[in-house]
Amino acid sequence: MSVTIDDIRAAADRLAGHIERTPCRPSRTLSQITGANVWVKFENLQFTAAFKERGALNKLLQLSASEQKRGVIAASAGNHAQGLSYHGQRLGVPVTIVMPVQTPVVKVEHTRHFGAEVILHGETYDDANAYAREICNQRDLVFVHPFDDADVIAGQGTIALEMLEDAPDIDVLPVPIGGGGLISGMATAAKAVKPDIEVIGVEAAMYPSFTARMRGFRPNIGGQTIAEGIAVKTVGELTYAIARPLLSDVLLIEESDFERAVALYVNVEKTVAEGAGAASLAALLAYPERFRGRNVGLVLCGGNIDTRLLASVLTRELIRERRMTSFRIIGDDRPGLLATVSAVIGGAGGNIIEVSHNRLSLDVPAKGAEFDIMVETRDSKHTDEITEALRQHGYPPRTI
Amino acid sequence: MSVTIDDIRAAADRLAGHIERTPCRPSRTLSQITGANVWVKFENLQFTAAFKERGALNKLLQLSASEQKRGVIAASAGNHAQGLSYHGQRLGVPVTIVMPVQTPVVKVEHTRHFGAEVILHGETYDDANAYAREICNQRDLVFVHPFDDADVIAGQGTIALEMLEDAPDIDVLPVPIGGGGLISGMATAAKAVKPDIEVIGVEAAMYPSFTARMRGFRPNIGGQTIAEGIAVKTVGELTYAIARPLLSDVLLIEESDFERAVALYVNVEKTVAEGAGAASLAALLAYPERFRGRNVGLVLCGGNIDTRLLASVLTRELIRERRMTSFRIIGDDRPGLLATVSAVIGGAGGNIIEVSHNRLSLDVPAKGAEFDIMVETRDSKHTDEITEALRQHGYPPRTI
Repeated sequence: MSVTIDDIRAAADRLAGHIERTPCRPSRTLSQITGANVWVKFENLQFTAAFKERGALNKLLQLSASEQKRGVIAASAGNHAQGLSYHGQRLGVPVTIVMPVQTPVVKVEHTRHFGAEVILHGETYDDANAYAREICNQRDLVFVHPFDDADVIAGQGTIALEMLEDAPDIDVLPVPIGGGGLISGMATAAKAVKPDIEVIGVEAAMYPSFTARMRGFRPNIGGQTIAEGIAVKTVGELTYAIARPLLSDVLLIEESDFERAVALYVNVEKTVAEGAGAASLAALLAYPERFRGRNVGLVLCGGNIDTRLLASVLTRELIRERRMTSFRIIGDDRPGLLATVSAVIGGAGGNIIEVSHNRLSLDVPAKGAEFDIMVETRDSKHTDEITEALRQHGYPPRTI
Repeated sequence: MSVTIDDIRAAADRLAGHIERTPCRPSRTLSQITGANVWVKFENLQFTAAFKERGALNKLLQLSASEQKRGVIAASAGNHAQGLSYHGQRLGVPVTIVMPVQTPVVKVEHTRHFGAEVILHGETYDDANAYAREICNQRDLVFVHPFDDADVIAGQGTIALEMLEDAPDIDVLPVPIGGGGLISGMATAAKAVKPDIEVIGVEAAMYPSFTARMRGFRPNIGGQTIAEGIAVKTVGELTYAIARPLLSDVLLIEESDFERAVALYVNVEKTVAEGAGAASLAALLAYPERFRGRNVGLVLCGGNIDTRLLASVLTRELIRERRMTSFRIIGDDRPGLLATVSAVIGGAGGNIIEVSHNRLSLDVPAKGAEFDIMVETRDSKHTDEITEALRQHGYPPRTI
């Protein structure tokens, strides 16, 4: 059992008109920043804001009449659940989704909104998945695996067909790996259409499941990554078998590069990527020498980032750019110290957004005072000016 | 002197191939939320992320050879500066931009990056503008007004041509008004192509300059709006004369609706709008009855929102949705109070992100303690559960 270019072309025919033919646009600014020639495929413009619809729909469209009537089931709290439920509803196929108990109600409701029956069960994804298998047998449903399924893989592969149609010059594709559905489909399609194209896997450093399998080690897998969409502990059997021979390498991405990539998509492309959705760009940022001067196709594969997380990533970017800085001031504990320091900062055009006193800290003289002032500035040059102004007034700050 | 549909068609021919033919897509989710049939024109996908390129380029392309050599000048710290500088550089026309002294260096550098000479002068926009007029005369340059100029207006009008080409069913256009360049161009084009279309102006409630002129009153204009791109104190003469007879009404938008619109664009459309860029959607949210059941074309006219502002808008949206809540707890000031309350919140699945003590507050008994705990929750139902848990443990919280 494998997946061929003909399967992927057949999937493309099946999907035509039922999913978005998303744009694949060159980005001059990302090209300038990274030194590569960059194209971006905006799969975050699918209706459910992620590529997962392709595989799910390709699966649904191949069910027998009796299977369509009985319905499908999957375990997922993410994009696969949305994609399957949305297209199931469109086609009149009953969809059951099992999610862990702690799933945010907003995700449950999104999925119910598409007419799916949502069952909350288990503490972890693995628990939910095991229960989904059980229900699947009991109710005689069709299990739709999020990645380790030939029809799902063929559906995801259609992305590469579209990219090479729109931008035939692309010669390297860094593709995110979670369970491997996206990369096995895309690599199969890309290598068939353009045999000398290079396909490179991209994994979160906390979840190097493909790398581990490839290199034969057992890593410590786990942790809180912002790329939750590719935080998969075990790569698929089928996906691994397909993708392994087609990949030249797999790159591991640290959290800070995911964050920079999400922030860059917002600031430069004015588009919203989830952590996993920004993985291809993160690879370009983390390993620029691998891509310099080449024609790189990035697949922005999903845009479902939690609002809170996005706000936090953007704020952290400001701290990284030194447009928000925490100054630690140590002075004599006399009335008027804060007033003086505030006046210096305000006079230099800084905007104080938070002050906290640490009177009890032992690294301050007993009659001294220490406080931290969080200041917004216009830019890092402005931050330097404020630092200098504080120094000149006798309060050399430490930056924290 | 006026602007005709022929001027706008001529502008469209001039611009073709030199600006992005941005997509105009229907939005099912925004339609569902607002009860109207909504299309969105993504002008934030222009290279400089705003529609201003159209007017600026239409102006540049009509300069005489001698004018092109001498160069152009404008006062702007925003999208007009970027659009003019970018196309000036492309065409080899020298561009001078005057900005107020306090302009963030990042904006200065963006503009210099496009080869413009940036002069920092004056405290306010008006000061910078007066100085630009002076330099213009001294150096014999061509002044490119950001809105009150027939060629600029004709350029902006091309947006409406494209929208009605892509979505001929649109029957009402709510269009942001700052100085009036966008709406006078778009209304001229739309009414010529489809005489029974309705064009409605949209102004920030803090800057009702068009409304004031129309209704003959002198309002208190000013204030910190997130729609800084349309925070213009005086509408143009030419733009007013053109637009006034073509508009059925002007709607005023409060800050909270701008914020909701920016957040909706991020959450639903996965796209980044600046405050002024989200004004059309804000109008739909603020006055749903005006648009219900109709075919509404929204022009998302710019995406250059400050990162810090965007992060803050998204965070405020979480507070509005009650996914971030500050609980005020009053208890007895004994060791272990915070531990108990934290345990209750943690046990109910809430995530404490900030604690502040107000031991000295007079509305607390002398031997009591008061503190505010900022908690992240999954959703508003979860917030209710945590409130209830605190109540049951004897610490009924006040929400702030």
